[in-house]
Amino acid sequence: MDITIAYQRAVQTYHHKYLALYHALRDAILNGSLAGGTRLPSSRDLAVMYGISRGSVAAAYDMLLAEGYVESAVGRGTFVIEQTAMPSAPSPIGQQSPNPTSAKPKTPALSAWGQRIMQLEKERELPSSAFAADSDDAQQSLISFQAGEVVLEGSSQHAWKSAMAAAGKDLQKPSSDSATAPVSGDAWLREAICQHVGRTRGITASPEQVVVCSGSMEVITLLCQLLINEQDHIVLENPCYSGIYRAVTAAGGQIQAAELNQQGIIPQDWDSKLLFVTPGRQFPTGAVLPLARRQQILQWAVSRGAWIIEDDYDSEFRWAGRPIEPLKALDRTECVIYVGSFSKSMFSSLRLGFAILPAALAQALTAAKRLYDPLPPARMEQRALARFMMRGDYARHLRRMTRIYRSRYDVFQREMKQLSGLFHWHQTDCGLHVYAMWKHEPASYHHLMQTALSYGVTWRDAADYQLKPGPPSACFIFAHLTEQQIMEGAKRLRQAWDSIKHQ
Amino acid sequence: MDITIAYQRAVQTYHHKYLALYHALRDAILNGSLAGGTRLPSSRDLAVMYGISRGSVAAAYDMLLAEGYVESAVGRGTFVIEQTAMPSAPSPIGQQSPNPTSAKPKTPALSAWGQRIMQLEKERELPSSAFAADSDDAQQSLISFQAGEVVLEGSSQHAWKSAMAAAGKDLQKPSSDSATAPVSGDAWLREAICQHVGRTRGITASPEQVVVCSGSMEVITLLCQLLINEQDHIVLENPCYSGIYRAVTAAGGQIQAAELNQQGIIPQDWDSKLLFVTPGRQFPTGAVLPLARRQQILQWAVSRGAWIIEDDYDSEFRWAGRPIEPLKALDRTECVIYVGSFSKSMFSSLRLGFAILPAALAQALTAAKRLYDPLPPARMEQRALARFMMRGDYARHLRRMTRIYRSRYDVFQREMKQLSGLFHWHQTDCGLHVYAMWKHEPASYHHLMQTALSYGVTWRDAADYQLKPGPPSACFIFAHLTEQQIMEGAKRLRQAWDSIKHQ
Repeated sequence: MDITIAYQRAVQTYHHKYLALYHALRDAILNGSLAGGTRLPSSRDLAVMYGISRGSVAAAYDMLLAEGYVESAVGRGTFVIEQTAMPSAPSPIGQQSPNPTSAKPKTPALSAWGQRIMQLEKERELPSSAFAADSDDAQQSLISFQAGEVVLEGSSQHAWKSAMAAAGKDLQKPSSDSATAPVSGDAWLREAICQHVGRTRGITASPEQVVVCSGSMEVITLLCQLLINEQDHIVLENPCYSGIYRAVTAAGGQIQAAELNQQGIIPQDWDSKLLFVTPGRQFPTGAVLPLARRQQILQWAVSRGAWIIEDDYDSEFRWAGRPIEPLKALDRTECVIYVGSFSKSMFSSLRLGFAILPAALAQALTAAKRLYDPLPPARMEQRALARFMMRGDYARHLRRMTRIYRSRYDVFQREMKQLSGLFHWHQTDCGLHVYAMWKHEPASYHHLMQTALSYGVTWRDAADYQLKPGPPSACFIFAHLTEQQIMEGAKRLRQAWDSIKHQ
Repeated sequence: MDITIAYQRAVQTYHHKYLALYHALRDAILNGSLAGGTRLPSSRDLAVMYGISRGSVAAAYDMLLAEGYVESAVGRGTFVIEQTAMPSAPSPIGQQSPNPTSAKPKTPALSAWGQRIMQLEKERELPSSAFAADSDDAQQSLISFQAGEVVLEGSSQHAWKSAMAAAGKDLQKPSSDSATAPVSGDAWLREAICQHVGRTRGITASPEQVVVCSGSMEVITLLCQLLINEQDHIVLENPCYSGIYRAVTAAGGQIQAAELNQQGIIPQDWDSKLLFVTPGRQFPTGAVLPLARRQQILQWAVSRGAWIIEDDYDSEFRWAGRPIEPLKALDRTECVIYVGSFSKSMFSSLRLGFAILPAALAQALTAAKRLYDPLPPARMEQRALARFMMRGDYARHLRRMTRIYRSRYDVFQREMKQLSGLFHWHQTDCGLHVYAMWKHEPASYHHLMQTALSYGVTWRDAADYQLKPGPPSACFIFAHLTEQQIMEGAKRLRQAWDSIKHQ
């Protein structure tokens, strides 16, 4: 018997003859040109027909048999199975387009969570698209006071490489089995974190109170899921980091905006079980929260039975004295969850952050994390970071970077003094960015942002961080730029302003 | 004026004098021995008092001022601020215990999601604790047919190292900025995945339909959050992978168990919008779903407007012919979401999985992922994997491992034939494990598991995968063991059974 299949076309697509035959037969079955019940040729006949070996035919038949396209009856031969109609006509071999015209793309019906995520995504896209540089050229030479990539340099880079090499050896030892690696993080790293926060922050913690995640946003998002029910009232500083706003909103929380002044958040008896706060250095304003307010906030948490999530995001780099001690060090009732990160203090692509929290909640966070991945992330980097910290390399690195960032800050401050007519610049003695309030009309601020972009300089519009519309303000992240770049950026900003004044 | 502070003790704890002074003063303020309103000595007096420089005293005072412990009145001196009462008495320096007895650990009030997670955690802990080896010694020599770590060896390891080195160079180029790295995954890797699934699975996809995650469980968990509302009915195969059960349960889904027979899932008109299925090789039974049922399931999805999540978890390793093509390749209406992983096909600590899904849903998955981390995970590994795949190393690696696993399977099968009185062994022509049904009473199965452990062999109780209690069954994962280990494990299992028979 004869059959007609697109074997020659299939041969051009697939390298092996048995594969080509399999595909040609399969497509003929799927598109109906080999109807259900059709008896297929014997393997000997088909081999002759297409000039291939009987073994190849047998292999193709075996595959079709295994997948249920054909069935074999002893002594009678091989038959195409009776099939129910396909949902729609399949495309033949070779006509492979990602969106076949026959298919109507389906609009996903998302869960309530999914819909919140998509709403957040829409909000997120607005600012960046509004202020993108026009061309690739402009992008190339642009001085961006928006976030930049932080990389390791010099002796720190050298020490990190050596720590990575040692970590690689550690993990090759037979005793190191990923099945037993704790989801809460490398044991050495959790120990090193305890020692570090004990020394630099006055926090007393044991390794079982530490959970290592892929960056601080994973910590924050999982904590939101663990602690927030839909419609719960959650207190955020206004302004605050947009990632926290998104995590709370995604979890279904209703946001209550806490007011700030120059000293940071103004304590109140919020009707809430959860407060996010940045006492060490308020994000983005840079305010340092005084002791009395810290105590009031702790008292509030105790009286309400509430949690405080303290994001100590940026206080590794402090020019004067040492990093300010966090709420966590003052907490005697285990109501504070402390969140830290290494992505800014080490380098951007090191996706490691951590939480220090009461042991019961650490277990819950670990369980939440395990849901997303039963194995810990970046095991080698975790071990390398532990070694880097334990050998004192991290402390050395922070000292070195603090000197460098301080010089950059001095340059930035000197340059920006010439622009004190434009912005009220917030003084800071730590961190990687400077916050500034616009002194003129909102319209002129947006005009300047647009004009500055055409002069090749940009910064972050702090409107992204406002929970309600407020006066224009800006974040200038300076730490990733060289002193020359900072000076050039300031010059361009002045030129942009001059050009506006003379219009 | 004189004050009493624990400066000498603080000096032993902190390396720098100004730090010791700062801590001693701060603790005295916090524990009330320096009352609010107390005027502090002048920096000159304090310097003399403790034999330190005036600069050190000034630094300590500055820090206390910045943190709000003291205030300074021009011409009058420095005063301890009036403070509200502390939530509870702080512990003095040196008495640092992780759980001070004064603090009552708080029981976290978890969200509904958090409570589901903790309930799942309790369920998870039961089986493993029930069958742990008694001693470390036993653990050492144990032959475990449970999951083991998969590592790269030989030429694959060599090729991977070279791909990692090349990836490192790629990412050091100035054009590569982590701020612009897409959250959905390295562009090269998504392209390589499209080519791979096109060649080996007959799936037509473009890179914007691919989202790379930290392992397939992240994909599955995020998809559950995106697609499941609380109380939604979700269809799972019974038995199925416990991770899928947990992800659905955590999202609040109500599980509807679909029945299987030797050919896999039995299609029905489920009242549901979401089905999880493993047609290529049913997990854990190994059944291959025939074409007719695949078509029926696709038809069901179309008629119901439902999603199918197809977990193609284990089909890279196939001894006969090529991997069976997935539902995704038959789908013409974009109702199938395809999930794959590299953690088993490459090595365990490579936490990379992916989804192929309609572009609109790919955007939602990317947005969901961005919430947890604004930067992509494991950038270097992603690029290295892209290079490894594009150079043909991945295909070579799969061929090599398939040969090795096939030999191990042959050994396993040969050994287990001697135990056909105990188990009904499911034949398989791909994958890394074998499923087996117990032929006797449930009690004797549990007796054998316990006895086998004392003989130094263990396997996975497939009860972990059952959605409702069913007859005893077992999963033997053989791929991570050498042929010698497999033989030794089988010998111990026979010995354990002999010992039971002779009791």
